[in-house]
Amino acid sequence: MAEHAHDGTPQGLFISFEGIDGSGKSTQTKLLQDRIPEAILTREPGGSAGAEEIRALLLTGDPDRWSAETEILLFTAARRDHLEKTIQPALDAGKTVICDRFADSTRVYQGATRGDLRGTVDTLHDVMIGREPDLTFIIDMDPAVALARGLARGSGEDRFEDMGLAFQETLRHGFLALANAHPNRCVLIDGNRDPAAVAAEIAVHVADRAMAS
Amino acid sequence: MAEHAHDGTPQGLFISFEGIDGSGKSTQTKLLQDRIPEAILTREPGGSAGAEEIRALLLTGDPDRWSAETEILLFTAARRDHLEKTIQPALDAGKTVICDRFADSTRVYQGATRGDLRGTVDTLHDVMIGREPDLTFIIDMDPAVALARGLARGSGEDRFEDMGLAFQETLRHGFLALANAHPNRCVLIDGNRDPAAVAAEIAVHVADRAMAS
Repeated sequence: MAEHAHDGTPQGLFISFEGIDGSGKSTQTKLLQDRIPEAILTREPGGSAGAEEIRALLLTGDPDRWSAETEILLFTAARRDHLEKTIQPALDAGKTVICDRFADSTRVYQGATRGDLRGTVDTLHDVMIGREPDLTFIIDMDPAVALARGLARGSGEDRFEDMGLAFQETLRHGFLALANAHPNRCVLIDGNRDPAAVAAEIAVHVADRAMAS
Repeated sequence: MAEHAHDGTPQGLFISFEGIDGSGKSTQTKLLQDRIPEAILTREPGGSAGAEEIRALLLTGDPDRWSAETEILLFTAARRDHLEKTIQPALDAGKTVICDRFADSTRVYQGATRGDLRGTVDTLHDVMIGREPDLTFIIDMDPAVALARGLARGSGEDRFEDMGLAFQETLRHGFLALANAHPNRCVLIDGNRDPAAVAAEIAVHVADRAMAS
């Protein structure tokens, strides 16, 4: 059943895209928005004025300047602001929200670097965020291909691209484990195909979910 | 018993100062450092390079740009960085740390504005900070006098000065309640006196605690 805002407007659908860098996530978020023009397209970290300022703290300067613990707090602060200022108001207005990365990214990336903090990540999420997307597409991709794509793009923003193929394999398995653990929310998508074919499969899942709600 | 760092150096004493704005906290931290020249003097929010950047996010711009929840996350992120980068290394080297505000300020200020978040503040502290000062001086002061002092100083950084006398009274009672709840850690100091007399009383308490440890 769809949730409703106070004025009776049905809540919009909250869709996130997850996967390793270079998996085609960002391309797929744009292809989905082409099919749902009224949808809001957003991404993490960032997605609201305050969260973009926190993003700048996280992604600029010496990569080691924050401990994993401080980083989790900053990611959660950015997510809280993003949820309050961008995502929830759009959902309340009945709009679809398409989000490039959400809490699953924090779970998988921190899990791969500091597995001992998984409980901390979960506690912060439960206390300060308290919600998941309605539907999460996990774009699965050969890490060697994804890594080559990510390096070619050269955004310079993602420190994880520097950590090599073995690390990308670890991340991939983290995302696969999440998909397995949350089969109702997560849909695993084979990203080793033509982007148009991937987009068509995603569109079918979104239409199914929208009809079911 | 004093804690010891791995190399056997006795841990330094961690001393915080708390109280409403204009209570004379900052003056007293400096007067105490005059008596213990090797002590590190620091303050929150801020006190480390990263925490100062988070402080700038918290204290500049529209006062309403962060929700109380996001603010708690940012204060906790700044505190974690401050603890890791400034406080703990100094304590490990056997130095006294004198800190102008610590977690008690978050408890009292958030408690006065959003009492429903007290459990959230405590959970974040337990999970991400996990320690208290060894000794906390709570400088008690007539809020009318303190408010006049704070306004005269006109730092422009403290939004709470704008909230009037009734709010300062609420804060004062928050600090008194903390002193009552933690009698082993907290020492209530009458700040309605000559600063030199206040400093002399504080020095006695510090000497007692240093001898006991």
